[in-house]
Amino acid sequence: METQESGEVGSIGDWAACAADPGYRAAVLDLLGALAYGELSAFERLAEDAKFAPGLVDKAALARMASAEFQHYQQLHDRLAEVGADPTEVMTPFVEPLEAFHRLTAPSDWLEGLVKAYVGDAIATDFYREVAVRLDDDTRDLVLRVMADTGHAEFAVERVRQAIADDPRVGGRLALWGRRLMGEALSQAQRVVAERDALSNLLVGGARVQGFDLVEVGKMFTRITEAHTRRMAALGLAS
Amino acid sequence: METQESGEVGSIGDWAACAADPGYRAAVLDLLGALAYGELSAFERLAEDAKFAPGLVDKAALARMASAEFQHYQQLHDRLAEVGADPTEVMTPFVEPLEAFHRLTAPSDWLEGLVKAYVGDAIATDFYREVAVRLDDDTRDLVLRVMADTGHAEFAVERVRQAIADDPRVGGRLALWGRRLMGEALSQAQRVVAERDALSNLLVGGARVQGFDLVEVGKMFTRITEAHTRRMAALGLAS
Repeated sequence: METQESGEVGSIGDWAACAADPGYRAAVLDLLGALAYGELSAFERLAEDAKFAPGLVDKAALARMASAEFQHYQQLHDRLAEVGADPTEVMTPFVEPLEAFHRLTAPSDWLEGLVKAYVGDAIATDFYREVAVRLDDDTRDLVLRVMADTGHAEFAVERVRQAIADDPRVGGRLALWGRRLMGEALSQAQRVVAERDALSNLLVGGARVQGFDLVEVGKMFTRITEAHTRRMAALGLAS
Repeated sequence: METQESGEVGSIGDWAACAADPGYRAAVLDLLGALAYGELSAFERLAEDAKFAPGLVDKAALARMASAEFQHYQQLHDRLAEVGADPTEVMTPFVEPLEAFHRLTAPSDWLEGLVKAYVGDAIATDFYREVAVRLDDDTRDLVLRVMADTGHAEFAVERVRQAIADDPRVGGRLALWGRRLMGEALSQAQRVVAERDALSNLLVGGARVQGFDLVEVGKMFTRITEAHTRRMAALGLAS
Protein backbone atom coordinates (compact mmCIF):
# COMPACT_ATOMS: atom_id res chain seq x y z
CA MET A 1 0.00 0.00 0.00
CA GLU A 2 1.23 3.44 -0.88
CA THR A 3 0.53 4.93 2.50
CA GLN A 4 2.74 2.30 4.13
CA GLU A 5 5.57 2.94 1.70
CA SER A 6 5.57 6.66 2.44
CA GLY A 7 5.58 5.91 6.14
CA GLU A 8 2.32 7.75 6.71
CA VAL A 9 -0.50 6.50 8.82
CA GLY A 10 -4.06 6.90 7.60
CA SER A 11 -6.48 9.53 8.87
CA ILE A 12 -7.87 8.86 12.32
CA GLY A 13 -10.86 11.08 11.57
CA ASP A 14 -11.71 14.71 12.30
CA TRP A 15 -11.63 16.58 15.60
CA ALA A 16 -15.28 16.01 16.42
CA ALA A 17 -14.87 12.24 16.13
CA CYS A 18 -11.54 11.98 17.97
CA ALA A 19 -12.23 14.47 20.77
CA ALA A 20 -15.04 12.26 22.06
CA ASP A 21 -12.18 10.36 23.73
CA PRO A 22 -11.24 12.48 26.80
CA GLY A 23 -7.64 11.21 26.68
CA TYR A 24 -7.26 12.35 23.10
CA ARG A 25 -8.85 15.70 23.82
CA ALA A 26 -6.53 16.28 26.80
CA ALA A 27 -3.48 15.34 24.73
CA VAL A 28 -4.35 17.72 21.89
CA LEU A 29 -5.09 20.58 24.28
CA ASP A 30 -1.65 19.98 25.82
CA LEU A 31 -0.05 19.96 22.40
CA LEU A 32 -1.77 23.16 21.26
CA GLY A 33 -1.02 24.82 24.61
CA ALA A 34 2.68 23.96 24.30
CA LEU A 35 2.72 25.16 20.72
CA ALA A 36 0.86 28.39 21.54
CA TYR A 37 3.15 29.33 24.38
CA GLY A 38 6.10 28.32 22.21
CA GLU A 39 4.99 30.83 19.57
CA LEU A 40 4.44 33.62 22.12
CA SER A 41 7.84 32.83 23.57
CA ALA A 42 9.41 32.82 20.09
CA PHE A 43 7.86 36.23 19.52
CA GLU A 44 9.53 37.55 22.67
CA ARG A 45 12.87 35.95 21.90
CA LEU A 46 13.00 37.28 18.34
CA ALA A 47 11.92 40.74 19.45
CA GLU A 48 14.67 40.66 22.04
CA ASP A 49 17.23 39.52 19.46
CA ALA A 50 16.18 42.40 17.21
CA LYS A 51 17.86 44.68 19.74
CA PHE A 52 21.25 43.06 18.95
CA ALA A 53 20.81 43.52 15.21
CA PRO A 54 23.80 45.21 13.56
CA GLY A 55 21.59 47.42 11.39
CA LEU A 56 18.07 48.49 10.51
CA VAL A 57 17.65 45.88 7.78
CA ASP A 58 18.46 43.02 10.16
CA LYS A 59 16.41 44.58 12.94
CA ALA A 60 13.36 44.80 10.68
CA ALA A 61 13.92 41.21 9.47
CA LEU A 62 13.84 39.92 13.05
CA ALA A 63 10.79 42.05 13.87
CA ARG A 64 9.06 40.60 10.79
CA MET A 65 9.72 37.04 12.00
CA ALA A 66 8.55 37.91 15.50
CA SER A 67 5.37 39.31 14.06
CA ALA A 68 4.81 36.11 12.01
CA GLU A 69 5.22 34.04 15.19
CA PHE A 70 2.62 36.18 16.88
CA GLN A 71 0.14 35.56 14.04
CA HIS A 72 0.68 31.82 14.60
CA TYR A 73 0.08 32.26 18.32
CA GLN A 74 -3.17 34.04 17.51
CA GLN A 75 -4.40 31.14 15.35
CA LEU A 76 -3.64 28.61 18.09
CA HIS A 77 -5.25 30.82 20.73
CA ASP A 78 -8.40 31.19 18.63
CA ARG A 79 -8.54 27.44 18.00
CA LEU A 80 -8.26 26.68 21.72
CA ALA A 81 -11.08 29.12 22.44
CA GLU A 82 -13.13 27.59 19.60
CA VAL A 83 -12.98 24.08 21.11
CA GLY A 84 -14.04 25.46 24.49
CA ALA A 85 -10.65 25.50 26.23
CA ASP A 86 -9.23 28.38 28.29
CA PRO A 87 -6.05 29.29 26.35
CA THR A 88 -4.26 30.67 29.43
CA GLU A 89 -4.97 27.58 31.49
CA VAL A 90 -3.85 25.29 28.68
CA MET A 91 -0.60 27.20 28.12
CA THR A 92 0.34 27.53 31.78
CA PRO A 93 2.02 24.10 32.28
CA PHE A 94 4.48 24.92 29.49
CA VAL A 95 5.49 28.39 30.66
CA GLU A 96 8.09 27.23 33.16
CA PRO A 97 9.84 24.59 30.95
CA LEU A 98 10.09 27.07 28.07
CA GLU A 99 11.22 29.93 30.29
CA ALA A 100 13.82 27.61 31.83
CA PHE A 101 15.09 26.77 28.35
CA HIS A 102 15.35 30.45 27.45
CA ARG A 103 16.98 31.34 30.77
CA LEU A 104 19.62 28.64 30.31
CA THR A 105 20.28 29.61 26.69
CA ALA A 106 20.28 33.40 26.68
CA PRO A 107 22.33 34.41 23.61
CA SER A 108 25.25 36.69 24.39
CA ASP A 109 25.35 38.25 20.92
CA TRP A 110 23.66 38.57 17.56
CA LEU A 111 25.13 35.37 16.05
CA GLU A 112 24.25 33.22 19.06
CA GLY A 113 20.72 34.64 18.82
CA LEU A 114 20.51 33.72 15.14
CA VAL A 115 21.78 30.18 15.71
CA LYS A 116 19.32 29.77 18.56
CA ALA A 117 16.39 31.01 16.45
CA TYR A 118 17.40 28.66 13.64
CA VAL A 119 18.08 25.59 15.77
CA GLY A 120 15.12 26.16 18.09
CA ASP A 121 12.74 26.61 15.21
CA ALA A 122 14.03 23.55 13.40
CA ILE A 123 13.79 21.31 16.48
CA ALA A 124 10.26 22.52 17.13
CA THR A 125 9.30 21.93 13.50
CA ASP A 126 10.74 18.39 13.55
CA PHE A 127 8.89 17.63 16.75
CA TYR A 128 5.52 18.87 15.54
CA ARG A 129 5.94 17.07 12.18
CA GLU A 130 6.57 13.82 14.10
CA VAL A 131 3.42 14.40 16.07
CA ALA A 132 1.28 15.70 13.19
CA VAL A 133 0.89 12.24 11.60
CA ARG A 134 -0.89 11.02 14.73
CA LEU A 135 -3.42 13.84 14.85
CA ASP A 136 -6.98 14.22 13.64
CA ASP A 137 -7.33 16.02 10.30
CA ASP A 138 -8.40 19.40 11.73
CA THR A 139 -5.63 19.60 14.32
CA ARG A 140 -3.01 18.36 11.85
CA ASP A 141 -3.92 21.08 9.34
CA LEU A 142 -3.61 23.75 12.03
CA VAL A 143 -0.27 22.43 13.33
CA LEU A 144 1.27 22.20 9.87
CA ARG A 145 -0.02 25.70 9.04
CA VAL A 146 1.51 27.37 12.09
CA MET A 147 4.79 25.47 11.65
CA ALA A 148 5.15 26.85 8.12
CA ASP A 149 8.47 28.55 7.51
CA THR A 150 8.66 32.10 8.77
CA GLY A 151 11.90 32.76 6.92
CA HIS A 152 14.18 32.10 9.90
CA ALA A 153 16.18 29.36 8.30
CA GLU A 154 17.35 31.11 5.16
CA PHE A 155 18.05 34.35 7.00
CA ALA A 156 20.06 32.70 9.79
CA VAL A 157 22.01 30.33 7.53
CA GLU A 158 23.09 33.13 5.24
CA ARG A 159 24.31 35.37 8.06
CA VAL A 160 26.02 32.65 10.09
CA ARG A 161 27.88 31.31 7.02
CA GLN A 162 29.04 34.82 6.19
CA ALA A 163 30.29 35.37 9.75
CA ILE A 164 32.26 32.08 9.66
CA ALA A 165 33.71 33.00 6.27
CA ASP A 166 34.81 36.37 7.73
CA ASP A 167 36.34 34.77 10.83
CA PRO A 168 36.64 30.95 10.97
CA ARG A 169 37.15 30.98 14.76
CA VAL A 170 33.49 31.97 15.08
CA GLY A 171 32.60 28.46 13.86
CA GLY A 172 34.10 26.71 16.89
CA ARG A 173 32.27 28.92 19.36
CA LEU A 174 28.93 28.54 17.56
CA ALA A 175 29.34 24.75 17.28
CA LEU A 176 29.63 24.55 21.08
CA TRP A 177 26.63 26.82 21.38
CA GLY A 178 24.57 24.58 19.05
CA ARG A 179 25.40 21.55 21.18
CA ARG A 180 24.36 23.34 24.32
CA LEU A 181 21.05 24.43 22.75
CA MET A 182 20.23 20.86 21.75
CA GLY A 183 21.14 19.53 25.19
CA GLU A 184 18.92 22.03 27.01
CA ALA A 185 16.06 21.51 24.56
CA LEU A 186 16.14 17.73 25.09
CA SER A 187 16.33 18.16 28.82
CA GLN A 188 13.24 20.40 28.95
CA ALA A 189 11.38 18.18 26.47
CA GLN A 190 12.02 15.13 28.65
CA ARG A 191 10.72 17.05 31.65
CA VAL A 192 7.48 17.83 29.78
CA VAL A 193 7.14 14.21 28.63
CA ALA A 194 7.57 13.00 32.20
CA GLU A 195 4.95 15.40 33.55
CA ARG A 196 2.23 15.24 30.90
CA ASP A 197 0.84 11.71 30.57
CA ALA A 198 -1.83 12.36 27.95
CA LEU A 199 0.61 14.22 25.75
CA SER A 200 3.21 11.46 26.10
CA ASN A 201 0.71 8.83 25.07
CA LEU A 202 -0.07 10.80 21.96
CA LEU A 203 3.63 11.12 21.15
CA VAL A 204 4.29 7.41 21.28
CA GLY A 205 1.41 6.10 19.26
CA GLY A 206 -1.68 8.21 18.94
CA ALA A 207 -4.88 8.13 20.83
CA ARG A 208 -5.32 4.39 20.46
CA VAL A 209 -2.20 3.46 22.38
CA GLN A 210 -2.61 3.00 26.08
CA GLY A 211 0.45 2.77 28.29
CA PHE A 212 3.57 4.83 27.88
CA ASP A 213 6.49 3.59 25.82
CA LEU A 214 9.71 5.33 26.80
CA VAL A 215 11.60 3.48 24.07
CA GLU A 216 9.41 5.06 21.38
CA VAL A 217 9.90 8.55 22.85
CA GLY A 218 13.64 7.87 22.96
CA LYS A 219 13.62 6.93 19.27
CA MET A 220 11.78 10.11 18.39
CA PHE A 221 14.34 12.22 20.26
CA THR A 222 17.12 10.32 18.45
CA ARG A 223 15.58 11.14 15.05
CA ILE A 224 15.30 14.81 16.04
CA THR A 225 18.92 14.85 17.26
CA GLU A 226 20.09 13.31 13.97
CA ALA A 227 18.27 15.96 12.01
CA HIS A 228 19.89 18.62 14.21
CA THR A 229 23.35 17.16 13.48
CA ARG A 230 22.72 17.35 9.73
CA ARG A 231 21.52 20.95 10.01
CA MET A 232 24.54 22.04 12.03
CA ALA A 233 26.83 20.48 9.41
CA ALA A 234 24.95 22.36 6.68
CA LEU A 235 25.58 25.54 8.64
CA GLY A 236 29.31 24.78 8.61
CA LEU A 237 29.32 23.77 12.28
CA ALA A 238 30.45 20.45 13.74
CA SER A 239 27.91 19.20 16.28
CA MET B 1 -17.42 77.61 3.35
CA GLU B 2 -17.68 74.30 5.10
CA THR B 3 -14.02 73.40 4.72
CA GLN B 4 -13.02 76.60 6.49
CA GLU B 5 -15.42 76.01 9.34
CA SER B 6 -14.06 72.55 9.98
CA GLY B 7 -10.53 73.93 9.96
CA GLU B 8 -9.45 71.74 7.07
CA VAL B 9 -7.39 72.87 4.14
CA GLY B 10 -8.22 71.66 0.65
CA SER B 11 -6.33 68.97 -1.23
CA ILE B 12 -2.94 70.01 -2.54
CA GLY B 13 -3.05 67.22 -5.14
CA ASP B 14 -1.68 63.70 -5.29
CA TRP B 15 1.88 62.50 -4.70
CA ALA B 16 2.89 62.60 -8.36
CA ALA B 17 1.94 66.28 -8.64
CA CYS B 18 3.43 67.40 -5.31
CA ALA B 19 6.66 65.37 -5.41
CA ALA B 20 7.77 67.26 -8.48
CA ASP B 21 8.88 69.88 -5.94
CA PRO B 22 12.16 68.51 -4.49
CA GLY B 23 11.57 70.32 -1.18
CA TYR B 24 8.18 68.65 -0.79
CA ARG B 25 9.57 65.24 -1.72
CA ALA B 26 12.40 65.60 0.81
CA ALA B 27 9.98 66.65 3.54
CA VAL B 28 7.65 63.71 2.96
CA LEU B 29 10.54 61.23 2.86
CA ASP B 30 11.67 62.66 6.21
CA LEU B 31 8.19 62.34 7.61
CA LEU B 32 7.73 58.75 6.43
CA GLY B 33 11.23 57.86 7.64
CA ALA B 34 10.49 59.25 11.10
CA LEU B 35 7.14 57.47 11.17
CA ALA B 36 8.63 54.16 9.94
CA TYR B 37 11.40 54.14 12.52
CA GLY B 38 8.87 55.21 15.13
CA GLU B 39 6.77 52.13 14.34
CA LEU B 40 9.77 49.79 14.42
CA SER B 41 10.81 51.35 17.68
CA ALA B 42 7.26 51.03 19.07
CA PHE B 43 7.35 47.36 18.11
CA GLU B 44 10.54 46.90 20.14
CA ARG B 45 9.26 48.88 23.12
CA LEU B 46 5.97 46.97 23.30
CA ALA B 47 7.71 43.62 22.90
CA GLU B 48 10.04 44.62 25.72
CA ASP B 49 7.09 45.69 27.89
CA ALA B 50 5.44 42.33 27.26
CA LYS B 51 8.15 40.83 29.46
CA PHE B 52 6.84 42.84 32.43
CA ALA B 53 3.27 41.65 31.89
CA PRO B 54 1.70 40.22 35.04
CA GLY B 55 0.10 37.32 33.15
CA LEU B 56 -0.30 35.56 29.84
CA VAL B 57 -3.37 37.54 28.81
CA ASP B 58 -1.57 40.88 29.23
CA LYS B 59 1.58 39.51 27.64
CA ALA B 60 -0.36 38.40 24.57
CA ALA B 61 -2.19 41.76 24.43
CA LEU B 62 1.13 43.63 24.29
CA ALA B 63 2.53 41.21 21.72
CA ARG B 64 -0.59 41.78 19.59
CA MET B 65 -0.05 45.55 19.68
CA ALA B 66 3.65 45.13 18.87
CA SER B 67 2.72 43.00 15.92
CA ALA B 68 0.24 45.64 14.70
CA GLU B 69 2.99 48.29 14.89
CA PHE B 70 5.21 46.07 12.81
CA GLN B 71 2.52 45.78 10.12
CA HIS B 72 2.41 49.59 10.03
CA TYR B 73 6.17 49.72 9.71
CA GLN B 74 5.96 47.32 6.78
CA GLN B 75 3.44 49.53 4.95
CA LEU B 76 5.67 52.59 5.40
CA HIS B 77 8.75 50.65 4.34
CA ASP B 78 7.01 49.41 1.20
CA ARG B 79 5.78 52.91 0.36
CA LEU B 80 9.28 54.35 0.70
CA ALA B 81 10.63 51.64 -1.61
CA GLU B 82 7.75 52.27 -4.03
CA VAL B 83 8.64 55.97 -4.43
CA GLY B 84 12.27 55.05 -5.06
CA ALA B 85 13.71 55.89 -1.63
CA ASP B 86 16.08 53.69 0.38
CA PRO B 87 14.08 53.00 3.56
CA THR B 88 17.17 52.51 5.72
CA GLU B 89 18.75 55.75 4.57
CA VAL B 90 15.53 57.66 5.13
CA MET B 91 15.03 56.24 8.64
CA THR B 92 18.61 56.72 9.80
CA PRO B 93 18.41 60.41 10.87
CA PHE B 94 15.60 59.52 13.29
CA VAL B 95 17.23 56.53 14.96
CA GLU B 96 19.29 58.52 17.44
CA PRO B 97 16.57 60.99 18.59
CA LEU B 98 14.10 58.13 19.12
CA GLU B 99 16.64 55.92 20.85
CA ALA B 100 17.59 58.86 23.07
CA PHE B 101 13.93 59.29 23.99
CA HIS B 102 13.62 55.60 24.86
CA ARG B 103 16.89 55.60 26.78
CA LEU B 104 15.79 58.57 28.86
CA THR B 105 12.33 57.12 29.50
CA ALA B 106 12.93 53.42 30.16
CA PRO B 107 9.92 52.23 32.21
CA SER B 108 10.81 50.64 35.51
CA ASP B 109 7.67 48.53 35.71
CA TRP B 110 4.54 47.36 33.94
CA LEU B 111 2.43 50.47 34.74
CA GLU B 112 5.12 52.92 33.63
CA GLY B 113 5.38 50.91 30.41
CA LEU B 114 1.62 51.13 29.87
CA VAL B 115 1.52 54.88 30.51
CA LYS B 116 4.44 55.36 28.16
CA ALA B 117 2.81 53.30 25.41
CA TYR B 118 -0.41 55.26 25.83
CA VAL B 119 1.12 58.73 26.07
CA GLY B 120 3.73 58.09 23.39
CA ASP B 121 1.18 56.74 20.97
CA ALA B 122 -1.21 59.60 21.61
CA ILE B 123 1.46 62.28 21.13
CA ALA B 124 2.58 60.63 17.89
CA THR B 125 -1.01 60.41 16.67
CA ASP B 126 -1.65 64.10 17.46
CA PHE B 127 1.52 65.08 15.68
CA TYR B 128 0.80 63.10 12.53
CA ARG B 129 -2.82 64.31 12.43
CA GLU B 130 -1.52 67.90 12.59
CA VAL B 131 0.78 67.16 9.69
CA ALA B 132 -1.67 65.04 7.67
CA VAL B 133 -3.78 68.05 6.61
CA ARG B 134 -0.74 69.50 4.84
CA LEU B 135 0.03 66.38 2.82
CA ASP B 136 -0.82 65.22 -0.67
CA ASP B 137 -3.77 62.82 -0.87
CA ASP B 138 -1.74 59.61 -1.23
CA THR B 139 0.63 60.33 1.64
CA ARG B 140 -2.22 61.53 3.88
CA ASP B 141 -4.16 58.30 3.32
CA LEU B 142 -1.11 56.24 4.24
CA VAL B 143 -0.32 58.30 7.36
CA LEU B 144 -3.88 58.14 8.67
CA ARG B 145 -4.01 54.41 7.96
CA VAL B 146 -0.86 53.59 9.92
CA MET B 147 -1.89 55.89 12.78
CA ALA B 148 -5.15 53.98 13.19
CA ASP B 149 -5.76 52.78 16.70
CA THR B 150 -3.97 49.56 17.59
CA GLY B 151 -5.93 49.16 20.81
CA HIS B 152 -3.27 50.73 23.06
CA ALA B 153 -5.43 53.43 24.48
CA GLU B 154 -8.33 51.39 25.78
CA PHE B 155 -6.06 48.68 27.13
CA ALA B 156 -3.75 51.10 28.96
CA VAL B 157 -6.50 53.34 30.35
CA GLU B 158 -8.41 50.41 31.80
CA ARG B 159 -5.37 48.92 33.52
CA VAL B 160 -3.96 52.20 34.82
CA ARG B 161 -7.33 53.27 36.25
CA GLN B 162 -7.66 49.91 37.97
CA ALA B 163 -4.17 50.22 39.46
CA ILE B 164 -4.96 53.71 40.82
CA ALA B 165 -8.24 52.45 42.25
CA ASP B 166 -6.34 49.63 43.98
CA ASP B 167 -3.69 51.97 45.36
CA PRO B 168 -4.21 55.75 45.01
CA ARG B 169 -0.52 56.48 45.70
CA VAL B 170 0.26 54.95 42.29
CA GLY B 171 -1.44 57.99 40.73
CA GLY B 172 1.14 60.47 42.06
CA ARG B 173 4.05 58.47 40.77
CA LEU B 174 2.48 57.96 37.33
CA ALA B 175 1.56 61.66 37.07
CA LEU B 176 5.23 62.57 37.51
CA TRP B 177 6.13 59.92 34.97
CA GLY B 178 3.66 61.35 32.42
CA ARG B 179 5.18 64.81 32.82
CA ARG B 180 8.66 63.43 32.28
CA LEU B 181 7.55 61.56 29.14
CA MET B 182 6.06 64.72 27.66
CA GLY B 183 9.16 66.75 28.47
CA GLU B 184 11.53 64.28 26.84
CA ALA B 185 9.25 63.88 23.81
CA LEU B 186 9.16 67.66 23.25
CA SER B 187 12.88 67.91 23.70
CA GLN B 188 13.62 65.24 21.07
CA ALA B 189 10.98 66.65 18.72
CA GLN B 190 12.56 70.09 18.92
CA ARG B 191 15.93 68.54 18.15
CA VAL B 192 14.48 66.92 15.01
CA VAL B 193 12.80 70.16 13.95
CA ALA B 194 16.07 72.05 14.35
CA GLU B 195 17.99 69.51 12.26
CA ARG B 196 15.57 68.74 9.42
CA ASP B 197 14.79 71.88 7.44
CA ALA B 198 12.54 70.35 4.80
CA LEU B 199 10.45 68.57 7.42
CA SER B 200 10.16 71.72 9.50
CA ASN B 201 8.94 73.69 6.52
CA LEU B 202 6.25 71.12 5.95
CA LEU B 203 5.20 71.28 9.60
CA VAL B 204 4.67 75.02 9.59
CA GLY B 205 2.70 75.44 6.43
CA GLY B 206 2.97 72.84 3.77
CA ALA B 207 5.09 72.72 0.68
CA ARG B 208 4.14 76.19 -0.42
CA VAL B 209 5.63 77.90 2.59
CA GLN B 210 9.22 78.96 2.26
CA GLY B 211 11.14 80.03 5.34
CA PHE B 212 10.85 78.53 8.74
CA ASP B 213 8.39 79.82 11.26
CA LEU B 214 9.35 78.86 14.78
CA VAL B 215 6.24 80.50 16.14
CA GLU B 216 4.02 78.13 14.14
CA VAL B 217 5.98 75.09 15.33
CA GLY B 218 5.68 76.37 18.87
CA LYS B 219 1.90 76.68 18.49
CA MET B 220 1.69 73.12 17.25
CA PHE B 221 3.67 71.85 20.23
CA THR B 222 1.36 73.82 22.52
CA ARG B 223 -1.72 72.18 21.00
CA ILE B 224 -0.13 68.75 21.43
CA THR B 225 0.77 69.52 25.04
CA GLU B 226 -2.80 70.65 25.78
CA ALA B 227 -4.17 67.43 24.35
CA HIS B 228 -1.69 65.51 26.53
CA THR B 229 -2.93 67.36 29.62
CA ARG B 230 -6.52 66.42 28.84
CA ARG B 231 -5.57 62.79 28.33
CA MET B 232 -3.65 62.59 31.59
CA ALA B 233 -6.66 64.00 33.42
CA ALA B 234 -8.88 61.38 31.78
CA LEU B 235 -6.48 58.76 33.06
CA GLY B 236 -6.93 60.09 36.58
CA LEU B 237 -3.50 61.74 36.62
CA ALA B 238 -2.70 65.40 37.21
CA SER B 239 -0.22 66.65 34.64
